[in-house]
Amino acid sequence: MRVGVLTGGGDCPGLNAVIRAVVRKGVSVHGFEFVGYRDGWKGPLEGLTMELGIEQCRGILPRGGTILGSSRTNPFTVDGGVEQIKDNLARDGVDALVAIGGEDTLGVATKLADLGVNVVGVPKTIDNDLSGTDYTFGFDTAVNIATEAIDRLHTTAESHHRVLVVEVMGRHAGWIALHSGLAGGANIVLIPEQPFDIDEVCALVEARFESQYSPIIVVSEGAVPKSGTEELTSGELDAFGHVRLGGIGDRLARQIEERTGKEARSVVLGHIQRGGTPTAFDRWLATRLGLQAADAVAEGDFGTMMALHGTTVTRIPLLEGTGELKLVSPEEYAEAQVFFG
Amino acid sequence: MRVGVLTGGGDCPGLNAVIRAVVRKGVSVHGFEFVGYRDGWKGPLEGLTMELGIEQCRGILPRGGTILGSSRTNPFTVDGGVEQIKDNLARDGVDALVAIGGEDTLGVATKLADLGVNVVGVPKTIDNDLSGTDYTFGFDTAVNIATEAIDRLHTTAESHHRVLVVEVMGRHAGWIALHSGLAGGANIVLIPEQPFDIDEVCALVEARFESQYSPIIVVSEGAVPKSGTEELTSGELDAFGHVRLGGIGDRLARQIEERTGKEARSVVLGHIQRGGTPTAFDRWLATRLGLQAADAVAEGDFGTMMALHGTTVTRIPLLEGTGELKLVSPEEYAEAQVFFG
Amino acid sequence: MRVGVLTGGGDCPGLNAVIRAVVRKGVSVHGFEFVGYRDGWKGPLEGLTMELGIEQCRGILPRGGTILGSSRTNPFTVDGGVEQIKDNLARDGVDALVAIGGEDTLGVATKLADLGVNVVGVPKTIDNDLSGTDYTFGFDTAVNIATEAIDRLHTTAESHHRVLVVEVMGRHAGWIALHSGLAGGANIVLIPEQPFDIDEVCALVEARFESQYSPIIVVSEGAVPKSGTEELTSGELDAFGHVRLGGIGDRLARQIEERTGKEARSVVLGHIQRGGTPTAFDRWLATRLGLQAADAVAEGDFGTMMALHGTTVTRIPLLEGTGELKLVSPEEYAEAQVFFG
Amino acid sequence: MRVGVLTGGGDCPGLNAVIRAVVRKGVSVHGFEFVGYRDGWKGPLEGLTMELGIEQCRGILPRGGTILGSSRTNPFTVDGGVEQIKDNLARDGVDALVAIGGEDTLGVATKLADLGVNVVGVPKTIDNDLSGTDYTFGFDTAVNIATEAIDRLHTTAESHHRVLVVEVMGRHAGWIALHSGLAGGANIVLIPEQPFDIDEVCALVEARFESQYSPIIVVSEGAVPKSGTEELTSGELDAFGHVRLGGIGDRLARQIEERTGKEARSVVLGHIQRGGTPTAFDRWLATRLGLQAADAVAEGDFGTMMALHGTTVTRIPLLEGTGELKLVSPEEYAEAQVFFG
Repeated sequence: MRVGVLTGGGDCPGLNAVIRAVVRKGVSVHGFEFVGYRDGWKGPLEGLTMELGIEQCRGILPRGGTILGSSRTNPFTVDGGVEQIKDNLARDGVDALVAIGGEDTLGVATKLADLGVNVVGVPKTIDNDLSGTDYTFGFDTAVNIATEAIDRLHTTAESHHRVLVVEVMGRHAGWIALHSGLAGGANIVLIPEQPFDIDEVCALVEARFESQYSPIIVVSEGAVPKSGTEELTSGELDAFGHVRLGGIGDRLARQIEERTGKEARSVVLGHIQRGGTPTAFDRWLATRLGLQAADAVAEGDFGTMMALHGTTVTRIPLLEGTGELKLVSPEEYAEAQVFFG
Repeated sequence: MRVGVLTGGGDCPGLNAVIRAVVRKGVSVHGFEFVGYRDGWKGPLEGLTMELGIEQCRGILPRGGTILGSSRTNPFTVDGGVEQIKDNLARDGVDALVAIGGEDTLGVATKLADLGVNVVGVPKTIDNDLSGTDYTFGFDTAVNIATEAIDRLHTTAESHHRVLVVEVMGRHAGWIALHSGLAGGANIVLIPEQPFDIDEVCALVEARFESQYSPIIVVSEGAVPKSGTEELTSGELDAFGHVRLGGIGDRLARQIEERTGKEARSVVLGHIQRGGTPTAFDRWLATRLGLQAADAVAEGDFGTMMALHGTTVTRIPLLEGTGELKLVSPEEYAEAQVFFG
Repeated sequence: MRVGVLTGGGDCPGLNAVIRAVVRKGVSVHGFEFVGYRDGWKGPLEGLTMELGIEQCRGILPRGGTILGSSRTNPFTVDGGVEQIKDNLARDGVDALVAIGGEDTLGVATKLADLGVNVVGVPKTIDNDLSGTDYTFGFDTAVNIATEAIDRLHTTAESHHRVLVVEVMGRHAGWIALHSGLAGGANIVLIPEQPFDIDEVCALVEARFESQYSPIIVVSEGAVPKSGTEELTSGELDAFGHVRLGGIGDRLARQIEERTGKEARSVVLGHIQRGGTPTAFDRWLATRLGLQAADAVAEGDFGTMMALHGTTVTRIPLLEGTGELKLVSPEEYAEAQVFFG
Repeated sequence: MRVGVLTGGGDCPGLNAVIRAVVRKGVSVHGFEFVGYRDGWKGPLEGLTMELGIEQCRGILPRGGTILGSSRTNPFTVDGGVEQIKDNLARDGVDALVAIGGEDTLGVATKLADLGVNVVGVPKTIDNDLSGTDYTFGFDTAVNIATEAIDRLHTTAESHHRVLVVEVMGRHAGWIALHSGLAGGANIVLIPEQPFDIDEVCALVEARFESQYSPIIVVSEGAVPKSGTEELTSGELDAFGHVRLGGIGDRLARQIEERTGKEARSVVLGHIQRGGTPTAFDRWLATRLGLQAADAVAEGDFGTMMALHGTTVTRIPLLEGTGELKLVSPEEYAEAQVFFG
């Protein structure tokens, strides 16, 4: 049996660990041959392949990024894209595909499965906002990097009278902000699910200073103010016409400075959170998802997504994982409030 | 309501995070007053108390160890110990106890609960061998420290022709060895649950060298050889007459050297694994267990142990957590074998 | 003999290590008594003191920040400031002062020494731009933090076709950018000493992409473009009317995006570089400077600044250290160019 | 001009950084061609070569180990070894050699230089015991790893009443023990240069406990007791008939337990100290030494060793670096004593 593997979307610590596990189990237990498809869905679409075997996977476990490369290519936006993919899989003698990616990549996998392509999915997003699984790999690494950053800021917050704002990743979901804010002992955490009121934020800042401590604020890149504070809304478009995310940390720091007269500084962790070596948890999770994906292919259990439930790695229908985003619930946000403000 | 808090057993990253969360939630939401009991059960037994409030908990979230101190004192081995505890709790006006500890500490809590003491338990062990909870805090920190050590050994293993043996913690359970061995890309993992055959280990070592790579072996301090290899069994007693654990890494390295003629070196991580700052996951888990414990006390839900199931923190009867050890199952060990040998 | 100790200016990993060393050597070898002055020169100016002895210094070696607090107060801008200081020192029975700080703090020390105050200085700046010493503590920590960040960005740069800009500290001197850029394998390093040409930068970016690699650019917060590129110049004032530094990383990323059409993202490390635990080198340097300062006081060798020359800690006249900034020379910048572009 | 490069002796973080810098400067500035010799002096002796150019050096800066491999082969112990080397260099058209290594590797280089071979040396040892240079790369990495380990042990030492012994590298010189002991706040540091008295050590241990703190002891693998304490002397031979070093940490812990009745535990960092990614300082130093070596070859300045003096990288005669070991002087050991005991 010949199996293709691809990785799509933004990079994420643990991608290489999944690839390695799929290949190791597939070759040594199931006797598969593998084809590596380059740059996400662009690979099977344009027939970009690379050799993929146990040798290519040597030493990649601790490495960030992906040896297969990645892209955001969507074959459904390309005329005859699906046919091209089917033709290329046939030409390459590929019987099944393992697609490793997030909402978009697995969304494509879901549709292709309906169209008869033998595909299994492995969920990937540092934002941890995919449904059907307790966690996605990459998230634990991002949270640890953000937490270490917050730890370092405490000494400055204590030695000077400054507001420190840390902008972390999270376009639609506040998981990284919530977990790193809780683990780092932040005073205010602002997430996309809960639009914030700048006046309330400034009131908390001033209250904190009155208790002789400087506040540390963690804000998701996708956090939005309640209506009526244009200074805080980016609206800016990037070179590709999409609204530019990020920048909220810097804008928030300036607003706080103007409104409270307290010095405020911002830190923007950006891509540091998604690069480099994965934590032990992410390597372990990515590896177990990969082993499970190899078994799913061997059993012909296609159209499934690997998922973590408790300490068990299991399979769910792809649609369950890609149907809707997993957001921070009001209850989960409320649970942490005892430490904030 | 006055609540006592104590920490017992070996130290573990996250203890201070639990204390901080119990106090923060207890004071600001439930209006509790707190009493800190020093040095585990020795505190309520001998009436050793310290002031415990939000002020005492400032800045302790990232710190290893425990501000309350710890001990292995067992009141049930002391004449009239239980009565002393009841008297001291009454004298201190303490209505309920939060006991944070492992098998022994919570075993005492279980018995005291049967004897009418209002106690709730928070599970703690870096070995992760307590039943009824997916994970215990401290384990993730230990696994990350062991994994970083293994990462560093790979370059030496590659540059020289040496066998490298890493001894990690785990007296009865191989969780740290299994997870760090998997995350670090070790070649052989030996755990207490699966007695090893030194000849098989040496055969794997030689096979590995034939494939031009040097082997990295992770061994739990409690790993034992199959009968008939006295050189590997410690048998040694420490200053207190207990069989001295540890030393297996060094003994294993020497045996491999003698039997294969290959240079072998050992690394003994020891207490490095249980000290210092907790990972983000352990801070998050410890904090959430502490919040839940404060609620359990407020609800009078005594005799319970806080536990993690998936992403939910819940409560189970104390006995479920302390009844029997959670060991690595043959299936879990087998799942990882594809990477070993 | 009673000795006062103060720390001034921005915080810097290693301040507590200096304090601990001065006190330890002073008490146990020279029999000094100590007075801690709070918040830099504000302390002796307003008579803000705290107890300072071996007990207060326990456990502070690995901690960032300063137990004495800090400020930017300059007694020479206060009417009768110098007299107030002399009066307070007399009132507190303080015979000598150890001033730990950067250009400003030691500049004040230099003038006070001329006015007959018994003062010795310990140099401190993460920017490493003080003359007369090979290195200042805090610098090694900042460089390591920036280097780890660059390490993590490489995998993203390789997996995606993105320009990554890292803004590091360095208002007047490019030491952090140069050392972290060299250690992290950056492709372009922009420092204050060498105004950059945005067209040249964009040309290097495009050349890098042609060789199939994505560029990583390290830029000092104080880096400035050659005249004629207003979009890159901040000009912005902060809440206190000073030109706001920083922001160059973000502006540079946007300019590159507009001019080359390549996606560009920025990371702003900000205060992460100056907080948290010091590296071993910074603890060792800070400790040795502190020991030397205690000896200088004991020998009555006032008006001196402790300095590192090679592996030797020695003393130089305060003026030599504070006279002029130590900048990156054209030769030092040129030496690294073989790796850039 | 064709230049050969080899790395000899134990591995050391920074070897790849040197190789990369020599090649980058040699190719792009001096127009050299390179030949990689495998496994130290074994390479030119047996004619083991590999391709070496800018492409082979991509991405190796942060990697531990050496892409050229290493060995302890000494051509002067091989009949006609020197002739073989000269013949192979001639056959490979190699005009000059860059030898990167420690005492042994550079000792060979020194003799070969006398015999007319065009060779320049780059000093390497994590033990930092080479003369003629302020520091050798790898040392800073080892000290940081040991210091982080000591940091983690403090919380355990505080929470329990235990003696913790950390064995670090250093066969003949105590630099790693002294610097990490100072940076980590250890209470006792034992180094090879100063034979220790077990009774004095036990007395310090008991004194420490009386002051309510648990002692942390850092011991070099080469530390030796004063005569008359056989239990502490290894004497053991390894599989190759050499006296086995190491083990002193474990033996010391047991002796302290027996003599003081206090629980004692040991940590043996071993090869963790010499593997994995280098610190920023080691990358910067290794890189600058490599750049200088390329220039030395271009200038025909053979028989020299690259060296760090203050912040300057310079050249000295090879013999100066390899003539005698750089040991910790009694004064340097005494300077740190104020923190010990």
